Amino acid sequence: MKHDVVIVGGSAGGIQAAICTQKHHGTEDILVIRQEQKVVVPCGIPYIYGTLGAVDKNIIPDKMLGNAKVKVGEVTAINRGGKTVTLANGEEIGYRKLVLATGSNPVCPPIPGVDKKNVYLVKKDPDYLQQLSTAMDQAKHILIVGGGFIGVEFADECRKRGHQVTMVELLERCLQLVCSTDLCVRAEDVLRKSGVNVITGTSVKSISGNSQVESVELSDGRSIKCDMVILGIGVAPNTKLAQEAGLQIGPSRGIKVDEFQRTTDPDILAVGDCAEKYSFFNGEPVPVRLASVATREGKIAAANLYSARWRNVGTIGVFSTVVGDTAIAMAGLSDIQAAKMGFDIVVGEAEAASKHPGTMPDAKPMKVRLTFDRRSGRLLGGCACCTMTAGEVSNLIAAGIVNGMTIEQVALFPMGTHPWLTASPLAYQLTDAASNALHKVVHTP
Amino acid sequence: MKHDVVIVGGSAGGIQAAICTQKHHGTEDILVIRQEQKVVVPCGIPYIYGTLGAVDKNIIPDKMLGNAKVKVGEVTAINRGGKTVTLANGEEIGYRKLVLATGSNPVCPPIPGVDKKNVYLVKKDPDYLQQLSTAMDQAKHILIVGGGFIGVEFADECRKRGHQVTMVELLERCLQLVCSTDLCVRAEDVLRKSGVNVITGTSVKSISGNSQVESVELSDGRSIKCDMVILGIGVAPNTKLAQEAGLQIGPSRGIKVDEFQRTTDPDILAVGDCAEKYSFFNGEPVPVRLASVATREGKIAAANLYSARWRNVGTIGVFSTVVGDTAIAMAGLSDIQAAKMGFDIVVGEAEAASKHPGTMPDAKPMKVRLTFDRRSGRLLGGCACCTMTAGEVSNLIAAGIVNGMTIEQVALFPMGTHPWLTASPLAYQLTDAASNALHKVVHTP
Repeated sequence: MKHDVVIVGGSAGGIQAAICTQKHHGTEDILVIRQEQKVVVPCGIPYIYGTLGAVDKNIIPDKMLGNAKVKVGEVTAINRGGKTVTLANGEEIGYRKLVLATGSNPVCPPIPGVDKKNVYLVKKDPDYLQQLSTAMDQAKHILIVGGGFIGVEFADECRKRGHQVTMVELLERCLQLVCSTDLCVRAEDVLRKSGVNVITGTSVKSISGNSQVESVELSDGRSIKCDMVILGIGVAPNTKLAQEAGLQIGPSRGIKVDEFQRTTDPDILAVGDCAEKYSFFNGEPVPVRLASVATREGKIAAANLYSARWRNVGTIGVFSTVVGDTAIAMAGLSDIQAAKMGFDIVVGEAEAASKHPGTMPDAKPMKVRLTFDRRSGRLLGGCACCTMTAGEVSNLIAAGIVNGMTIEQVALFPMGTHPWLTASPLAYQLTDAASNALHKVVHTP
Repeated sequence: MKHDVVIVGGSAGGIQAAICTQKHHGTEDILVIRQEQKVVVPCGIPYIYGTLGAVDKNIIPDKMLGNAKVKVGEVTAINRGGKTVTLANGEEIGYRKLVLATGSNPVCPPIPGVDKKNVYLVKKDPDYLQQLSTAMDQAKHILIVGGGFIGVEFADECRKRGHQVTMVELLERCLQLVCSTDLCVRAEDVLRKSGVNVITGTSVKSISGNSQVESVELSDGRSIKCDMVILGIGVAPNTKLAQEAGLQIGPSRGIKVDEFQRTTDPDILAVGDCAEKYSFFNGEPVPVRLASVATREGKIAAANLYSARWRNVGTIGVFSTVVGDTAIAMAGLSDIQAAKMGFDIVVGEAEAASKHPGTMPDAKPMKVRLTFDRRSGRLLGGCACCTMTAGEVSNLIAAGIVNGMTIEQVALFPMGTHPWLTASPLAYQLTDAASNALHKVVHTP
């Protein structure tokens, strides 16, 4: 059996590639091969355990795939010469174009005791996530290793579910890899106030217990009693198939792709967590692995299947999360990342009520912080917190970045405002943050 | 007494000019002359009568003005030769640079009976608005003339306050001047379901009653009993001072300004509702009068007081409102406006749950509709509804417009997503609307 387009992997990148292949080329002979009967919403996984309450409430419906067909199975080899893939059951499936969307696997740290019962990774596998759910029903004290987004969200949801929760982060702050310090501090404060035991600047040395976890020993000598451990320390691109097929791998361990998502084989494209990403700012590899990035790459790959149409201008990185009722969102470079790239940065901040006048019901402080390149004036990054519009405000920041908007252009951005929906036009945070940055670089006459 | 900068008018444009004069020039010798003791938040006026409950809760604090001084009084003449303004009390005040921010006045339609007691305009005057509030306490049935933003918001707020409400709009649809038909229909539906009697395609012929209004007669012959009428049919630029001083007036009746907000006198600038606006799309005059536009012009004028620094690239027009719990927001050209300007348009729409998965609490349908120029591919306008992020999403659309983003660029926009904050990355409305528009113009190979 041969198909026009075969997509290996059924999560965000693979689904988007399937959708857009139909849109761009009218091709209907698309086969998606995936290992799972059902596909979980990747960003929704932490919410299974609190807000949603069930794995079944966090499933991407197959109808999104349109006319693409689905085969559940494991691809074990790519035969580039014959343009086929081999499945675990021995089946051979031919392709004209192959899209690899094999995703990533959670990293399992080499900690003694990591193989004990009730130590879980965060896998995008509904059956595994259901086991985790069942086990969690019996757990009292859950220890989460890793204070990135996944760790923070798990901590918050497990807390909502009524568990005693400890979160251990190796770095000085949770969310430190992508957030500026003030946002990290804010997230930690919210978690602590809600009852989560947040431990930072500390590593996990070992996991103890008989067959089942009973305690976790930390680098500072402490031992924390717990009956479940969730490991959320990051993911590694799943490139086994690609490597075995002789495709090149990039410096941040993703499948090497060009700006059209093409691998080193012209008939094979790669998208999402398994594919190498390059920074919008300097073209260097960046280890950003997000469903939103995967879907964008799926769109690009679909457009470019038969000829180069859409160029990937690089990965900006737009992240957001909600801790308690505090939304935290950021786009582009943090100050530390910008400094590492050699930018001389200038920062502007503005905070104002999220509605106007500030006497409107539920008006809360909302802050925007922007980072610009002093030399060119261009927007490099920014963050927004803490109201629920922060996600779209970070997208607005991303729009400024991708369009190369300068400090002046952002300060003069023609925003609309409304009492229920935004800050006052006299105190709109995005434009005011730029204006405040501007007056650090512009001297009075 | 002579000041470096004198600003006539103390609402949004004047305040922003005062703030930014200090930021740009370090000038502290700024005098704001205004007629009101206190300044109301202009967009908050309808909310005084329902959500906020009091005029005092809708005041812009004078501390926003920083070190600028305030004089309450009426400027009756500008003496351009001597560079002074004359106040009603005879006082003469000198200026080096003068900024006119004299705003607009509500249009009073020439309807018989319009002078009766309990017929009110929507004036930005706290004392007048307080009188309206006191009178409203006694009113049972309020009839609102005009179904633009101000009319719709007054209708919704008066309804919340427990009044019987009728809204009469001359055009076929409420909000028709700026909204696409589907949004107009949605707003009308929400109002009707909440109990407002919405009458469109009908004009008011007369207002009857003894001293006080008792009924309103419509062009279709109907007579509506009511004991209060609120006239919200629009505003006219307040250009009396400027005209009497011999400054040129533009075709849409605002004070003529160049792209640096300078009037025909190089020492006088004008901003906000009193100043002429020019379309971002074709440079033609446009009658857009919004506080957000006024503040942007205040920023530009302040920068340009002593030399041309910031160019006004034109007015895009970003509007939003909330009716019941339905937010409606739009940016740029409506289809009708675009067609009038001669654009051959292509439209794309996308609707998806506002959170993801759609099983997240309070997830609601959220729709984005985008209008592009078929020839250049550029984004011309768009709208978002109906969740509370619509305001910021319309700002995202505005960012696309002001940066000249094309269909492809919007389809590939590197948005971030989060379960609590946005749609799924597989169904993000902005990018999907562009993608759907794209496939109307791109043919399959």
